[in-house]
Amino acid sequence: MKDNRKVVIVGTGFVGMSYAYALLNQNACDELVLIDIDKKRAEGEAMDLNHGLAFSGSHMRIYAGDYSDCSDADIVAIAAGVAQKPGESRIDLLQRNTAVFNTIVGPVVKSGFNGIFLIATNPVDIMAHVTKTLSSFDRSKVIGTGTTLDSARLRYLLGEYFKVDPRNVHAFVMGEHGDSEFIPWSQAYIATKPVMQICAESKGRYCSDNMKAITQEVKNAAQRIIEAKKATYYGIGMAMVRITKAIFGDESSVLTVSTMLDGEYGRHGVYAGVPCIVGRKGVEGIIELSLTDEEMEQFNKSCDILEEAYSGIKF
Amino acid sequence: MKDNRKVVIVGTGFVGMSYAYALLNQNACDELVLIDIDKKRAEGEAMDLNHGLAFSGSHMRIYAGDYSDCSDADIVAIAAGVAQKPGESRIDLLQRNTAVFNTIVGPVVKSGFNGIFLIATNPVDIMAHVTKTLSSFDRSKVIGTGTTLDSARLRYLLGEYFKVDPRNVHAFVMGEHGDSEFIPWSQAYIATKPVMQICAESKGRYCSDNMKAITQEVKNAAQRIIEAKKATYYGIGMAMVRITKAIFGDESSVLTVSTMLDGEYGRHGVYAGVPCIVGRKGVEGIIELSLTDEEMEQFNKSCDILEEAYSGIKF
Amino acid sequence: MKDNRKVVIVGTGFVGMSYAYALLNQNACDELVLIDIDKKRAEGEAMDLNHGLAFSGSHMRIYAGDYSDCSDADIVAIAAGVAQKPGESRIDLLQRNTAVFNTIVGPVVKSGFNGIFLIATNPVDIMAHVTKTLSSFDRSKVIGTGTTLDSARLRYLLGEYFKVDPRNVHAFVMGEHGDSEFIPWSQAYIATKPVMQICAESKGRYCSDNMKAITQEVKNAAQRIIEAKKATYYGIGMAMVRITKAIFGDESSVLTVSTMLDGEYGRHGVYAGVPCIVGRKGVEGIIELSLTDEEMEQFNKSCDILEEAYSGIKF
Amino acid sequence: MKDNRKVVIVGTGFVGMSYAYALLNQNACDELVLIDIDKKRAEGEAMDLNHGLAFSGSHMRIYAGDYSDCSDADIVAIAAGVAQKPGESRIDLLQRNTAVFNTIVGPVVKSGFNGIFLIATNPVDIMAHVTKTLSSFDRSKVIGTGTTLDSARLRYLLGEYFKVDPRNVHAFVMGEHGDSEFIPWSQAYIATKPVMQICAESKGRYCSDNMKAITQEVKNAAQRIIEAKKATYYGIGMAMVRITKAIFGDESSVLTVSTMLDGEYGRHGVYAGVPCIVGRKGVEGIIELSLTDEEMEQFNKSCDILEEAYSGIKF
Repeated sequence: MKDNRKVVIVGTGFVGMSYAYALLNQNACDELVLIDIDKKRAEGEAMDLNHGLAFSGSHMRIYAGDYSDCSDADIVAIAAGVAQKPGESRIDLLQRNTAVFNTIVGPVVKSGFNGIFLIATNPVDIMAHVTKTLSSFDRSKVIGTGTTLDSARLRYLLGEYFKVDPRNVHAFVMGEHGDSEFIPWSQAYIATKPVMQICAESKGRYCSDNMKAITQEVKNAAQRIIEAKKATYYGIGMAMVRITKAIFGDESSVLTVSTMLDGEYGRHGVYAGVPCIVGRKGVEGIIELSLTDEEMEQFNKSCDILEEAYSGIKF
Repeated sequence: MKDNRKVVIVGTGFVGMSYAYALLNQNACDELVLIDIDKKRAEGEAMDLNHGLAFSGSHMRIYAGDYSDCSDADIVAIAAGVAQKPGESRIDLLQRNTAVFNTIVGPVVKSGFNGIFLIATNPVDIMAHVTKTLSSFDRSKVIGTGTTLDSARLRYLLGEYFKVDPRNVHAFVMGEHGDSEFIPWSQAYIATKPVMQICAESKGRYCSDNMKAITQEVKNAAQRIIEAKKATYYGIGMAMVRITKAIFGDESSVLTVSTMLDGEYGRHGVYAGVPCIVGRKGVEGIIELSLTDEEMEQFNKSCDILEEAYSGIKF
Repeated sequence: MKDNRKVVIVGTGFVGMSYAYALLNQNACDELVLIDIDKKRAEGEAMDLNHGLAFSGSHMRIYAGDYSDCSDADIVAIAAGVAQKPGESRIDLLQRNTAVFNTIVGPVVKSGFNGIFLIATNPVDIMAHVTKTLSSFDRSKVIGTGTTLDSARLRYLLGEYFKVDPRNVHAFVMGEHGDSEFIPWSQAYIATKPVMQICAESKGRYCSDNMKAITQEVKNAAQRIIEAKKATYYGIGMAMVRITKAIFGDESSVLTVSTMLDGEYGRHGVYAGVPCIVGRKGVEGIIELSLTDEEMEQFNKSCDILEEAYSGIKF
Repeated sequence: MKDNRKVVIVGTGFVGMSYAYALLNQNACDELVLIDIDKKRAEGEAMDLNHGLAFSGSHMRIYAGDYSDCSDADIVAIAAGVAQKPGESRIDLLQRNTAVFNTIVGPVVKSGFNGIFLIATNPVDIMAHVTKTLSSFDRSKVIGTGTTLDSARLRYLLGEYFKVDPRNVHAFVMGEHGDSEFIPWSQAYIATKPVMQICAESKGRYCSDNMKAITQEVKNAAQRIIEAKKATYYGIGMAMVRITKAIFGDESSVLTVSTMLDGEYGRHGVYAGVPCIVGRKGVEGIIELSLTDEEMEQFNKSCDILEEAYSGIKF
């Protein structure tokens, strides 16, 4: 770790700024740079955050910058891109956002940046892949937010249902952050007891039908928020802070970020959400769970969709 | 204090939601209700926050509600109202927002609410006064955000200038939260040493001219942010959390919130920003500083402007 | 939850005071009462803590009290008792400490106390059982620290070994907090992957022999500390704060506290460390893990030892 | 700042260990080394702390070490020395502790240590002076705890009396940390209003006689705790963490640590407690308050006592 924790955010739309505001409220870094194609907007956002700084008790430096500020950054988070429209699938956003990334990743790399890319722009698995390709960085250093938020939400809902602290709920949403994502229920535990076993032993108190309802709630959440308020940003902002803390704290925490598979789960060269060990060096390892045949089929299907979408991009 | 810390926010625009998001990131309450004339929007905002909740480690309950939810709330924060337009003075917003408050304060009081009103809508001194009038609550329980943010910003800038922790800078912005606000420099200290004395003794190292520049920077900040990004909300959101913590923590902290004067500083029946002691019961006391004649003149001028504006309202 | 979080500590020796000091440093309660047979000592300890309070930013009330102060307490923690001597088994301490508890539990109950007993005095399983008997409280409200500390230490060591955040290590030490405690390795996971499977798949990178070394390190830790500094108290003080937070936060967290079994794991009427769901009401549930036959044998052996020791007590 | 925050504690008695335990509970450093003449004791203490670490969520490294571990430390805190006996004046401890420091400071400097000495051993002003002399370090890098704890306690008591947050009470205890310490009441403020003015204007509600009682309470506190429990350590442990945070956070906070005067307040070459600006480089400045003649007399008397005591030491 170097002397201070420096984050650069590219894209000061609502996702980028929700991340910035959460970083400030949680004192999660020491230096924060905002970059936007609309420089004046970035300056206004920095000023607004700096006013809040007066209440935070920290000495965080916050300012609008440019790509040269990436040279000694620990994390460059990209939240730039065109917004997901109501009804638009995440995949449809693809080509429009690739064009945007073409103007960002090059200048960041040219600055001498040697840290970790954290990608939040949707479709996030593919945009992370695009960033990996454009930057030629090692896969460990290009991370998509993946299904981090979905998994946290799943654990929260299971905690509510089983009346147990979400920290004692161990479960994942895997695959594409999007329609083809799935929950491997064979890997869902309360403490070290399988959820399916708890349902079976509970004599009807807990029911596997409710698991299906929870699955739907997790999968539909983003769409429902978009219908109500046009976009989602607060939840993902806090998910990004969680990943940021895992990196700065060198936590080796298990998070379902989007990473490039290189033989794990039998797949090669595709970005997807899987349980990763995240620390100071980025993705330090991938946990290969013993999925059931049915779950492997769901995972492969999701990866196929991602591969096909990525392969259609023209660079 | 009752069993949990309950906050209701009326108005889920950017100010209200920045307050909500900061409450969540700082775990500053246990129950949070969002009310908006656009109920679906409030529901979407609650969902978005709930996703972030999964990362917070807290058990905060967050949901969209209605005025009946105010009955057992500790704080009802009002951030509803029409936004300040570029170039529009805070005073110009007045009549438009009074109409909005007519539809809010009545239903809140009717719910049986017996807690503290925290007003953030601009022009905030007058909207707090309007709320006091409409609710007939004791003045201690109707608080405007006043010059809390301005004062924090002032302390931050002086801390930067004198290279000392802002917590050891003691200084205030007083009067209207707006054009007529002023800084009583006779009351500005580093630790217990007057800023003016430090400038005089410093042989040119520190200069009182810089104090004028800092004054301008504090006064113009909001306008500059509005020019860049149309509205200010992150800083004020954190200021509101600061006040909220002073209340829930029964801190008896000194904050320049907007309160109704009742003889203090020789004024009666006007809301203005002055150093108040804020705790579980709201404004528990007002500190009467020994202002210079010139500062008293500035304060009176600011109060005159506020009185005149308020007197023009048709209820 | 009532209006403030009140803890009474009986016994201001090093364990009790380490708990008190950790509560203060972590701001984990609002009111803290110290009771000791040496009242002057308790007063001195309260004064010493109160000096630290000036740095904590909290408003915690700390004072030396007597048993009447237990009437509205949420938690009464008992850390009184004679210290474990070098070489003395925990079981040997038994009769000496039962005599001490005879003078404590009665007056606490007589005060009208209706909260949760948290027992830290060793042998802790049996002293918790003694407290249950003397108080006639529901089993959910008499909690021993059990193997909470041992389990946390186990997770920490496994986290170091497998280079993963201890929060993603799920494993337990069960049974007596003492010589007969054991680790059910069938229930040890990294995320949702069994530790034994990781060892098997790792081609020698991870080795089950190291699991035996970790087992010994966990079991011998207390004895080694006692040899070096005569007593252990810092670790257990933080374990007690962890349990306290689970209670006040109504976390429903899984912790291996010592609780009375009533059919779970096929045992009746014995206190032992098992995974419990701990929240505002104390032990809200017991998780019955699917132990292997060998593990069940170890568990039964440990329970037999505890039953025999308890049955020898003369009340 | 370098990559991690490293503290070495020399002397694992109750003061040193209370500091260590508070550092752990507040996650105030990343690496913590314990050195003691009794190496086995230091190892036991490190083990005990490491058990608590399992609950802290941090990755702090804690171990027993030797003087070579000081080479890259940021702070070496010395809490070694013989304990103050009941009735013994702080000054009487002097020669006994100088002998101890002769065996510590040399090896620390020889390791290549280039950080900040934080001295807690009493009489602390003189032991800090002794450390400065033995190390030949710049005065900014040899800090005594001074009257930090006394000042915090004073602010706390004034906050209680005036019903205002201690953070809004600005007042100091100055001079020797011991019998000749004094409170410059001309420098005591609530917000920016002088305490003496508040008393005068309050028509008997607040009385300057109470200020005398508070003065006595602050001055006698340590002695009363020593009578009750033989030694004081919890309060001073938290005071040391406060200073540590000011250093690591580069806070430029005003704290009444003990520093060597070099013309300030008209004194040269004496260590005494005065308001200092404390940051990453140690004592970055001294605030020269405008004391009254009577206060200057008290200060000079205190400095005379310290000078005389120091001049009697045989090196």
